[in-house]
Amino acid sequence: MVKTLLLTLFIMITCIACSHESSAISKEIIALEKSALERWNRGDINGYLDIYANDIVYFDPMIDRRMDGLNKLEEYYKPWEGKINITECEMIDPKVQAVDNMAVLTFNLRSVEDNIVYNWNCTEVYRKEGDNKWKIIQTHWSYVKAVQN
Amino acid sequence: MVKTLLLTLFIMITCIACSHESSAISKEIIALEKSALERWNRGDINGYLDIYANDIVYFDPMIDRRMDGLNKLEEYYKPWEGKINITECEMIDPKVQAVDNMAVLTFNLRSVEDNIVYNWNCTEVYRKEGDNKWKIIQTHWSYVKAVQN
Repeated sequence: MVKTLLLTLFIMITCIACSHESSAISKEIIALEKSALERWNRGDINGYLDIYANDIVYFDPMIDRRMDGLNKLEEYYKPWEGKINITECEMIDPKVQAVDNMAVLTFNLRSVEDNIVYNWNCTEVYRKEGDNKWKIIQTHWSYVKAVQN
Repeated sequence: MVKTLLLTLFIMITCIACSHESSAISKEIIALEKSALERWNRGDINGYLDIYANDIVYFDPMIDRRMDGLNKLEEYYKPWEGKINITECEMIDPKVQAVDNMAVLTFNLRSVEDNIVYNWNCTEVYRKEGDNKWKIIQTHWSYVKAVQN
């Protein structure tokens, strides 16, 4: 009886600890993304570039195939530096699914630039690096209800 | 001198072992995806449903926001059962980035149905479950060079 109670208590404490850990990862990842996004919205491309891993892979609706590697992303983002002015931005229902050293963040996003509304799907995959910092290894932006061009 | 040689040898063996492990995960994940895709192409929706985790989250260009959970996906796929006939399908440059128990697979895909060519971006996130089987926890399909509808 005592053994069963102790085992139950142990399982409960483990579950609570795991849930706290997962919730902590979730908060950290969402905060990283929001910070990079806020910088992007006012034309600062380094918010994202600073948290991209060297081996990042990337999709958005403007490119014709997957883009691989931080160097390519740096070149690709360069022309946008200082030229973005998002006037409204709402991250909708962010969700993080994580293991110890990898996590996937998904959300919808509504943004407004030059009075045009953009509705986005977004998937970011984060990996915990050797220095214990989370970096993005995969980004996928797509328009909601898009059609082929 | 001997110590340095032994250390170098140890590092080399560890690197080779890690690289083999990562390559094994990569092969396993790509094989799982190809098998599900081949079944999908001939109208068998269970190829994917069988490897979706209960907590899967999902984006494609037809839905108006992220879809959460296996039950929703089962409902969503049901009308397509037996009604898909992809006549050509090419997975382009699949790449897997993995840690022990989570992996992200990205690729482009060219498919043809009713003589219409579809060009896709795809991101799948796999997680190794308690039974050591890999399951998909996140799917993101989008059209290449898409425009808002």
